[in-house]
Parts: sequence; C-alpha cells; structure tokens
Amino acid sequence: MGEIIYDVIILGGAGAGLTAAMYAARRKMKTLLITKDIGGQATGTDRIENYPGFQVVTGPKLMQRFQKQAIKSGAEIIFDETIGVEEKSGEKLFVVKNKNGEYFGKTIILSYGKTPRNLNVPGEEKFSSKGISYCASCDAPLFPNKIVAVVGGGNSAFDAALLLSKIAKKVYIIHRRGEFRAFEYLFDLVKKQSNVEFILNSTIKEIKGEERVKTAVLQNVETNGEREFQLDGIFVEIGSDVRTEFVKHLVKLDERGQVIINNNCETFYPDKDEVRPGIFAAGDLTMTPFKQIVVSAGEGCKAALQAYNFIHGLKPEFIADWVAKKNRPKE
Amino acid sequence: MGEIIYDVIILGGAGAGLTAAMYAARRKMKTLLITKDIGGQATGTDRIENYPGFQVVTGPKLMQRFQKQAIKSGAEIIFDETIGVEEKSGEKLFVVKNKNGEYFGKTIILSYGKTPRNLNVPGEEKFSSKGISYCASCDAPLFPNKIVAVVGGGNSAFDAALLLSKIAKKVYIIHRRGEFRAFEYLFDLVKKQSNVEFILNSTIKEIKGEERVKTAVLQNVETNGEREFQLDGIFVEIGSDVRTEFVKHLVKLDERGQVIINNNCETFYPDKDEVRPGIFAAGDLTMTPFKQIVVSAGEGCKAALQAYNFIHGLKPEFIADWVAKKNRPKE
Repeated sequence: MGEIIYDVIILGGAGAGLTAAMYAARRKMKTLLITKDIGGQATGTDRIENYPGFQVVTGPKLMQRFQKQAIKSGAEIIFDETIGVEEKSGEKLFVVKNKNGEYFGKTIILSYGKTPRNLNVPGEEKFSSKGISYCASCDAPLFPNKIVAVVGGGNSAFDAALLLSKIAKKVYIIHRRGEFRAFEYLFDLVKKQSNVEFILNSTIKEIKGEERVKTAVLQNVETNGEREFQLDGIFVEIGSDVRTEFVKHLVKLDERGQVIINNNCETFYPDKDEVRPGIFAAGDLTMTPFKQIVVSAGEGCKAALQAYNFIHGLKPEFIADWVAKKNRPKE
Repeated sequence: MGEIIYDVIILGGAGAGLTAAMYAARRKMKTLLITKDIGGQATGTDRIENYPGFQVVTGPKLMQRFQKQAIKSGAEIIFDETIGVEEKSGEKLFVVKNKNGEYFGKTIILSYGKTPRNLNVPGEEKFSSKGISYCASCDAPLFPNKIVAVVGGGNSAFDAALLLSKIAKKVYIIHRRGEFRAFEYLFDLVKKQSNVEFILNSTIKEIKGEERVKTAVLQNVETNGEREFQLDGIFVEIGSDVRTEFVKHLVKLDERGQVIINNNCETFYPDKDEVRPGIFAAGDLTMTPFKQIVVSAGEGCKAALQAYNFIHGLKPEFIADWVAKKNRPKE
C-alpha cells in the first residue's frame, strides 16, 4: 500500500485531543492529530481559574502549553478538516478523509468537541465578525464603551455578560424564555452590574447594518411586538452543536448526537450494545455532561491509554465496563 | 442537632480530592475535605512530564498548587484519618467518623487513592525510613554512591531503578518472577544502565541491620537457595492496595476492592445494580485502570459536579449512564 499507517489518529486539537496525543506519543505509538485549529472553545476564554494547577491562565496560553507537550512527546499535527471516517473492511484499519488528504490509522480517537450554535436569522452571516461574535472572551475587548447584546440564558451567556459589563457601556441580555438557566451565584453577580439590562421572552428576528452591525430587530414571543435596538455588537451564546454526522455509521450516539462512551472512553456499535473496537472518544463531543477542560483532558488520557491497550492486545487489568458486562442481555 | 452539615465531604486530598474540593466550593457548596496528607502518591514523584499544562513539575509542587486553588475557592481542609462512614437512616445524611471527630455531609466523595503494598518480612517495619523506602522519587537522592535494591517487576519498579541508577553506585532489581511486566521502552532504558543488575525468581526473606539497613537475605524461589546481600537501601515497588473495607457496606466494589463507578463518577449499591445516591468516587481508588493525575483530576471534577446536581435535584441534561439504563434487567 505504501501509505504510512498510524497507530492512532486523533481528530480534534483541544484539551481532549492534545492530551490524548501527548499520552499516545509517550507510549511510543505513531500518533497523528488532525485539527482545524488548536484549542477549540478553550481559546475563547481569557480567564480560566478552574483548571487544576493554574490559579489563573488564559485559554490560548493553556492550550499552547498542551500543544507544546504533545509535540515534544512526538505527536505529529496536521491542520485540516476531517470530512469522513471509513473502516477498511477486513483490514482492521480506518481511513480518515480530510479536505486535503487521507490517512490510515489502526485506531481513532474522536475529540473534536462542539461548535457554537447560530441564531439562523437574516443578517447573521453577513455581519459575522463584523459585530457578531460567538466568543465573548475573544472579542469583548473590541467593544469599549459600546452598546452590546448577549443572546442566551445559560451560564455561558451570563459569563459573557459579566465580562462585557466591565468593558462595554451597555449590555442587554436577550433571552427567548422568561427565566434563566444560569447558576444562581452567576446570575446574582450579573444582576449587580448597573449597565446590564434584561430583555426576556424575546428573540432576534433580523440583524441590520452597513459595514458593521447597527441594529437588531427584536420580537416579543408573547405579544409578537417588534422593537429595533441600536447595537454595536451581538454576542451569541446559545449553546453548541456536536458534528457527529460523519461517524454515526461507526459509533452509537445519544439523542443529542453526542458519542456514547463507557468509563474507559470506549465507544459502542451504532446497532448493538457492544464496545466498538478501535474507536475511542473524549471530551465535549461525548455524552459526559460536564464540559470542562480538566474533564476533557482526563478523558483524552483514558482514550489514548485504552487505544494503547487495544493495539497491544492488553486486557485491562481491571473491570473495564462492569455495568455493560453485568447487565448485558443474554444472547 | 447543632452540628454543621456539609453539602459535600471529600475523603482524600490528592489529585482527585483537591480537584473535587475546588469545583464543589466554586459551586458554592459547603465543602469539607478530610485527609491524612496532601498530594498522596503524587508527592512521591519528583518529575512529572505528563500532566497537561506543565512541561515538567514536581509532584509536591503540583499538589501544592491544587491545594491552594481548593482553599482559595472556599473549601475547608481538615487533617485526620477517616475510620468509618455511616448512613443516618431516614435523614439523607452521612456521618464520617475520624480518629479525631465526626462530621455530617449530604454527599460523600471517595477519593483517598491507594496505599503502597508492603513486603511483610522480618525487619521491614524496624527499618522503614531507615533504609527502606516506598517512594523512590522522594528518597533516591538520599543514597548517593550507595548500594540499593528495588523490589518489584512493574513500571513503578523500573521507574525507580532508572532514577536510582543515576544516583546510587549499584542498583539491584529483585523480582520474584522470571520476567517483567514493565513497558518495553522502560525495560530497554533500564537495561542500558551499566550499574543495574537483575536478580530474578527471588524474594527478600529478611532485612537486617543495626541503626539502618545493612543486608537483605534473598531466597531463590526455584532452588530455595539463600544469599545475603549488602545493601544500603531497599525500595519497595510492588504495587498498591485500596483501603475500601470501611465503605463496602455502602458501595459496590470490584474483585480488587476498587470502587465501581459509571462515567459520571456515581457509585452503585453493593447488593443491587442501581446507582447509589449521594456517594461519588474519583481517582485511584476507582476501577478506572489508568492511574494518572489528570485522570484523577478529571474524575474529581465529575464527582463534584454530579454531587452538585444531586443536591440541587438537577437532572443531568444528558444521558448519564446509558449503559446501565439500557441494559438494566426488567423488574
């Protein structure tokens, strides 16, 4: 075949993927990491206080450190966008197809996280990066003394509002519901900011402007009444989607499209309740409900070491997936 | 009752426990961590290269940073030894009994790791810390140009031997079997050291000395022949035991005594295949086969956030334990 065969191909270069790459390469596995960018959503955070070991660190800096360790350990990193993963039947090999080439791997680790959700309204695409942002921590400093809106009602929306309240002149929080889903302490913190105003039961219907955003048309979902607000910036914080369409023929997904894993970061066949050999998953794209860098990193480590065990035919010394075995239906 | 009731009591103060404490306290839970010491086995490592974010860090330094974050977040730390955990029936409350007092908690996180295994031979107790060590990285620097032995045949024994080969004059590796279970690359590295000698199929029968270790009596397990070796130091690296006797009436353990968890660090009842409400576990004492600091930290985070969800009656947004639910026998 003449092609290089990697021991493991890791898809995604944020907390989970970079940790997996470091661990895999340190185990002397031939390791390739394919990613569009380094750091994923973590790079959109300018103040991380809850990654153990760092009292405070910026997302980009932490992710650069992860990357440096992965490369130092011997992992190869290619910047590309993966569009498909296929199994080469009978060869115990996977083919990873990307926009600019394909690669062969004995094992695959899925760790490309999630992508922020869009509003899907007129004007959104046109003014993206021209007033519309999906990353408050990245872009908030660009709006000093401006009028901005945060769209959303969860923790990330409140995080964004708190940050923006210290930079912008005025911050609206626009939420389609009548109540919020953010942590109470976070809600309390934001409520104290005198320049923050809540606009409930409302959605953005259209975004208008010339070169950049100038106004947004808001619609009240109860009265259907519309109002046009002058805005310099709109921060969209309405959650994320996981892009698992191209692996759903290989592994089982939950109803949100997230990859189902066991405690050792093994995956399952889509059509039967059995562990899927050779494919592992870690981080935000799994069904693990806690989307934290340290959780992703821990899972990345598990996925890499389990891939190592798989390649070397090592049985885990311990009960790997007790629940699955114990409760598996009799055949 | 007059007693303080903690939202969460965390047992153990190493990677998993300190991370759990930080996350719990940041969620404004009243958090108590009870531990004998800070850092556990990690403090026995003077060169950590695989904790993501740090190219190189010593175990004690990393654990001090974890501790600082936990305290800064508002967690309370008490140094004591836990001897029992009981459920106060009907009150949805746990009582944690320690040598110096008892505490009440709505939830418990088990995260006290493992303890190194002993040789159980005459002289071992007498010369402990007087030539006998269970932590090569801590004590190796105390043996410059000395004659030492490492007992064991796994990765930790080879790690210890490699380190000691650079400090001591002579390093024996004493192993009761005829072959080793260490990683090949590690074995190769150690084999290259000219001052390392392998003594296979042998066990230590007795350790002798005056103030400190002077000799060890070795017995060949095949021939039963005995030889006495002059030794200045003995490093015991024969694995660890998990001390879960005092929780086995509360949670299900595997055959090695490790706590069985699902992917969200929930535990199970000992006598039925159901999640055990209120008790969570993380780190080396769980059945997770990968004993790494980043894995412990990731699980500590999961345990704390799952405890938070439990206390606030929040349903996990995602499929928490799909495998368990899916395959649970019909009742």
